Amino acid sequence: MPDVHADRRSRLAENLQQRELDAALISDLVNLRYLTGFTGSNGAVLVTAAAVATFVSDGRYRDQATAECPDVDRHTDRDLFGTLLTHAELPGDARIGVETHALSVDEYETVVGLMGERAFSASSLRRAVEELRVVKDDVEITALARACEISTQALAGLLDGPFAGRTEREIARDLEWRMFEHGAEAVGFDTIVASGPNAAIPHHSPGDRRLEGGDLLKIDFGARYDGYHADCTRTMVLGPPADWQREIHAAVRDAQQAGVDALVAGKPVADADTIPRDVLDEAGYLEAFTTGIGHGVGLMIHEDPFIRKENTGTLLARTPLTMEPGIYLPGRGGVRIEDTLVVEHGDPTVLTTATKDLVELG
Amino acid sequence: MPDVHADRRSRLAENLQQRELDAALISDLVNLRYLTGFTGSNGAVLVTAAAVATFVSDGRYRDQATAECPDVDRHTDRDLFGTLLTHAELPGDARIGVETHALSVDEYETVVGLMGERAFSASSLRRAVEELRVVKDDVEITALARACEISTQALAGLLDGPFAGRTEREIARDLEWRMFEHGAEAVGFDTIVASGPNAAIPHHSPGDRRLEGGDLLKIDFGARYDGYHADCTRTMVLGPPADWQREIHAAVRDAQQAGVDALVAGKPVADADTIPRDVLDEAGYLEAFTTGIGHGVGLMIHEDPFIRKENTGTLLARTPLTMEPGIYLPGRGGVRIEDTLVVEHGDPTVLTTATKDLVELG
Repeated sequence: MPDVHADRRSRLAENLQQRELDAALISDLVNLRYLTGFTGSNGAVLVTAAAVATFVSDGRYRDQATAECPDVDRHTDRDLFGTLLTHAELPGDARIGVETHALSVDEYETVVGLMGERAFSASSLRRAVEELRVVKDDVEITALARACEISTQALAGLLDGPFAGRTEREIARDLEWRMFEHGAEAVGFDTIVASGPNAAIPHHSPGDRRLEGGDLLKIDFGARYDGYHADCTRTMVLGPPADWQREIHAAVRDAQQAGVDALVAGKPVADADTIPRDVLDEAGYLEAFTTGIGHGVGLMIHEDPFIRKENTGTLLARTPLTMEPGIYLPGRGGVRIEDTLVVEHGDPTVLTTATKDLVELG
Repeated sequence: MPDVHADRRSRLAENLQQRELDAALISDLVNLRYLTGFTGSNGAVLVTAAAVATFVSDGRYRDQATAECPDVDRHTDRDLFGTLLTHAELPGDARIGVETHALSVDEYETVVGLMGERAFSASSLRRAVEELRVVKDDVEITALARACEISTQALAGLLDGPFAGRTEREIARDLEWRMFEHGAEAVGFDTIVASGPNAAIPHHSPGDRRLEGGDLLKIDFGARYDGYHADCTRTMVLGPPADWQREIHAAVRDAQQAGVDALVAGKPVADADTIPRDVLDEAGYLEAFTTGIGHGVGLMIHEDPFIRKENTGTLLARTPLTMEPGIYLPGRGGVRIEDTLVVEHGDPTVLTTATKDLVELG
């Protein structure tokens, strides 16, 4: 692999210079992976404003760290923070940014105590690494596209059926198995299979309900590949749809397309919230849409940016997002249509390519 | 279900009285589940010293919270902490314990600011709820036993083979599928299938290596059931074992049995670390054991107590633990044997009942 992690650390270093910080102490495991490639469950990295990285994990991960992060100064010790502050080359009065949104109060007190011993001082780094992660590099988009391709293939196989008579849980396991067969390293999140009245529950856990004719079937799922998460929802119907089912599916589909069309680099993030909501409003269903409409996706299934009308930011090219309006009618059923796509300067690239027609299942 | 969550909150309330706190603000999601039954991904509960509970989650979880926590005062708002402090009935100068080990620095500042508006003050609750969770109640032990039974059944089916020629990843998927078939709600953690030289890596991720005759095969796995995690490791051999394989397996088995025998209520936790290590030392393999020897297990796969010589505590009845010594010989292979068991006043109850003989796979 090219020096993708070194490139990311260089971008962080530039950010540190702007913030007049001498170093960043990164302990959030997702940010650690992003900056070093390390996938273990315990570790930290200190990155200086000159982009020099010092890494530490515990003894369980010595060999793994050697394989995953060959290009950083590595140490093995259970005292993560003390080890980093001892080994990093920093000026005597260094200002070090810490992740106050991720560090616990107790960890923070430990770090500040250790810094005090060395005359260093702590400052909040805010979500600097999360902000770097918004715009994805080629390695990331390749992995995300593969995760979405696997998910699309798995759904295509599932749609061969059968459906009627099987439980939600059986459908979920079947779909997850297919994701593994197509190359997923893991299921990205708990698969949602919601049938009949359960389709009205936005985040239903698949249970023992058996599917039957006339059900709406909402499936929200995604594979993980090389750390990156696909996120896709489709809603089908068992047998010919009733008029109300056809109507709410069409309304959600129109809103979803309007939302996708709003995802263009340079446009306000907030528009991608208000535009599809307006479509639902015109159809008379805005009150039946009770969840968020979209979010960034990458090493985490939900990450920055979040599509909300309060978000004052602008869409940036190469940002993967979901667009997922829905209509939820308690006791009756519901529809959600969700894609994972990548913001571009023109039309976004939709990575989850399964049909958005209302598929009638046999 | 009986009022198991109310009972747990009463135990926390007694703890608060001892600490001279008026309330506990619980935001750690595992502790929240333990105290209320809520399984969503966003929420908090405030429990007063009189055991009155006020709960909050966001709009996604309104119906789920009603179903899972019928017996608490429930609110729905994205401002979790503000909502709790507004609705809880507390004296004007209330001292509220917060989870400084789980709360981020930024969250803490938000909470302290909100408390200041009401003349409340914050104090560290330490790991009070984690300490309550060490000794399990009947509901917990029943769920844990079921998770272990499912895991044992899944392994028994897997051992019918075949093995030679299949990849580690295929074996892992096969075992995970069997856990679901036997009733697991989820795989409790990333399954480890480590073959041949990979068996020397304590936490190997299953890859594309195909199993072959003469391999040691180390499998560390466990099902999750009703939130509770089984944790089991067995090491087998493909075909007749070599002398060195037989020797290290016997050494680990002896150490593991000595460790299990040390797990008796009233005995020091530290003994359960030193006694099995002494057995490995006598066999000449202590340096080849590089991981922790055991940990509590429950709603988390790793939780208090951790079996370490630095642990000054005493074993308590009804505490589920793992016992998992190993020998890891880089480049050659390795053996680990691990059970999940429950500390009793006499012999512990071993929940993972698969044979610990060195099974020769066909």
